[in-house]
Amino acid sequence: MKQKIQIGLCGLGTVGSGVVQILQDHQEQIRYKLGCEVEVAKVLVKNKEKKREYIGDAGILTTEPADITDNPAIDIVVEVMGGMDDTYQLLERSIRNRKHIVTANKDLMAEQGDKLFALSQEYNTDIYYEASVAGGIPILRTLSDGLASDKIQKVMGIVNGTTNFILTKMTDENLSFEPVLQEAQALGFAEADPTSDVEGLDAARKMTLLANLAFKMPVAYEDVEVSGITSITQEDIDFAGRLGYQMKLIGIAAMDDGKVEVSVEPTLLPTAHPLAQVKNEYNAVYVYGQAVGETMFYGPGAGGLPTATAVVSDLMEVVKNVRLGVSGKAYVTPQYKKALKDNTQKHAKYFVRVEAEDQTGAFHAVTNVFAGENVSFAKILQLPHANSKTAEVVMVTHKHSKQQIENSIQLLEKLNVVKRVISCYRVDGED
Amino acid sequence: MKQKIQIGLCGLGTVGSGVVQILQDHQEQIRYKLGCEVEVAKVLVKNKEKKREYIGDAGILTTEPADITDNPAIDIVVEVMGGMDDTYQLLERSIRNRKHIVTANKDLMAEQGDKLFALSQEYNTDIYYEASVAGGIPILRTLSDGLASDKIQKVMGIVNGTTNFILTKMTDENLSFEPVLQEAQALGFAEADPTSDVEGLDAARKMTLLANLAFKMPVAYEDVEVSGITSITQEDIDFAGRLGYQMKLIGIAAMDDGKVEVSVEPTLLPTAHPLAQVKNEYNAVYVYGQAVGETMFYGPGAGGLPTATAVVSDLMEVVKNVRLGVSGKAYVTPQYKKALKDNTQKHAKYFVRVEAEDQTGAFHAVTNVFAGENVSFAKILQLPHANSKTAEVVMVTHKHSKQQIENSIQLLEKLNVVKRVISCYRVDGED
Repeated sequence: MKQKIQIGLCGLGTVGSGVVQILQDHQEQIRYKLGCEVEVAKVLVKNKEKKREYIGDAGILTTEPADITDNPAIDIVVEVMGGMDDTYQLLERSIRNRKHIVTANKDLMAEQGDKLFALSQEYNTDIYYEASVAGGIPILRTLSDGLASDKIQKVMGIVNGTTNFILTKMTDENLSFEPVLQEAQALGFAEADPTSDVEGLDAARKMTLLANLAFKMPVAYEDVEVSGITSITQEDIDFAGRLGYQMKLIGIAAMDDGKVEVSVEPTLLPTAHPLAQVKNEYNAVYVYGQAVGETMFYGPGAGGLPTATAVVSDLMEVVKNVRLGVSGKAYVTPQYKKALKDNTQKHAKYFVRVEAEDQTGAFHAVTNVFAGENVSFAKILQLPHANSKTAEVVMVTHKHSKQQIENSIQLLEKLNVVKRVISCYRVDGED
Repeated sequence: MKQKIQIGLCGLGTVGSGVVQILQDHQEQIRYKLGCEVEVAKVLVKNKEKKREYIGDAGILTTEPADITDNPAIDIVVEVMGGMDDTYQLLERSIRNRKHIVTANKDLMAEQGDKLFALSQEYNTDIYYEASVAGGIPILRTLSDGLASDKIQKVMGIVNGTTNFILTKMTDENLSFEPVLQEAQALGFAEADPTSDVEGLDAARKMTLLANLAFKMPVAYEDVEVSGITSITQEDIDFAGRLGYQMKLIGIAAMDDGKVEVSVEPTLLPTAHPLAQVKNEYNAVYVYGQAVGETMFYGPGAGGLPTATAVVSDLMEVVKNVRLGVSGKAYVTPQYKKALKDNTQKHAKYFVRVEAEDQTGAFHAVTNVFAGENVSFAKILQLPHANSKTAEVVMVTHKHSKQQIENSIQLLEKLNVVKRVISCYRVDGED
């Protein structure tokens, strides 16, 4: 058995530095658990001259990918530099040179993971990516190991810290989207270009990875139905609150009768639901298993040290596998053919806000449209609209197909008495 | 490699039947993940004649332990029958016959786990016991794998469903202990003899196992300081609520400067704390890691199918290890010598209720005692006692040593103006 495992680290930003720091701080612990040394042999950086904390010997820094991908001394490549096509090339070449991969790159895994999995199977190497989903929560491991014997029916989660921070602020402090986004940017919780977060794309990538693992089905990023939080208003949040709901950006992956739906969209949850209580930049993933029932995993969604911890945990698993000679048998490859639900097969409750003329029969005309589509209601609230010339109707439907709801909304928009459909959100987490 | 792994199942109650059911229902899935068959070869029962669902061939039933312990065909013994000394004998003999163990028996593991671990190390066999702690939550696996590279500082949890059910009812419906206990018994959430649950002993056993794993230190069941929920009153819960706290039975295992404290006691948590939101029979374990920060795992604490799921997950790990020839390297054996904190080294905030004479200077005399012990307050509430002849003082201290608080209470009880110290609870989950 090897007595020393050598790592090629790609990227030395917050996460990369965190990995080096943890490996140093927990050297003794790690040696005890693995029975061998883990050494960072090479670090790929953009700028070799920059001063680096935690790096004793500047000679291990390189700007040349081949120093890692083609370095026969290196057993495991830890990729925490981000990026898409160049990074793919680097990992592909590493795998072909029979190196194992640990990556925190959710964009890459969500979009090209299938190719990397196939390649690592061919070369009998490991590829671990726990850190790419919900940084501090060991959810991939839980889905693939802990609940292995259960049939997972639904995974539902808050998997983006930025949007959860923004929605928490909007809810608790009654603020609108724009100023809260600016504050989040000032605090470093949102990026200068927040598109990927606020449009739900980041969450969609994570749901892709979770859905693949939960259902053992090759769901693609393009299969995820996404809508973000930019058009959520204070009024939406306020009306939701009056009806007992909290607004959250929720990723859902659910399977019924062998067919899967994956979505990321603003969703109303009952205030008492555990996910409704997840505040600020925290993430949480709810898993419904046939046998185990409801379980939830809660933790920091991102951040240098939580993500670095996940990377090091993965690294330790890969090291164990190397030493035991059992690499390439870890995470599950897709077992089922892709089968997605159509809109007649997706069922949920919906919250619908309509602005209507304040005249006799308007309310009846609105409810008549829903009745025509066989949509019935759990809750209805009617009140004068803020401009006082029109009326506002807020409804929560019973569980119906997405098709029925979309049909109803289209018909509503054609009604003379309806000024506009203000908003329509999924409601989840209650029967 | 073996193409079929044979199981000896001990016990065919709710959990045992669940195990058989899951193995049957998920046969295909399990074969795919393991690459081999898993067969229940023998089942130890008390009564062979009883009709059993899920058991096709009654010939596999036996009342003779040796049919399992001494059966050369059996690779893995799954123990879900409970019991202490006889069960220990059965497992010991099984290990000596080089069988691997999966057990859901927390009493046995908390009290004799160390001996079984030592023995399984000697014989190079696996012993997995995830199901013994918090049934549906894969917390042991998370502590030993997922957060492996992190330094765990504190584990804090609701690890007993019965007491959480009772406290939830007492809080939400403003009821007292006795009628709620009776309801819990009627609903099957509490046993006829509820001592082990309501006195905190069950929780203490689980905390023993969690502390061992989190700190890699051989903490014994006897080292856990335990108090139960039987003397909690509606007034305690009510006053806690007025000060913004929820009463929960909380197990705590914390390490500072290499020294450990483990306790189970009624504890007040800020209402917004995620553990305060865990209701009814649900369990949740909060883990504070140096790097990862706060994470929480939530799920059903017990129940036939959740526990059976945990058993089968363990079983699958053990099967993988058998097939890969890497048994006996799983969970961590103690790495550090036992070092427990004394009362001067345990620090917490405390909630103290005192009934005092309603006379000038009484309040001053009470606070004077605390001042003498250098104990200061975060919150004080003074009001007439229900009997209106005395005054009640409710205080929440700043963080002080347990020794300081105990000294203060002893001195208070000697004060002439103090009728009695009504209650004293730890406060946690806030700075």
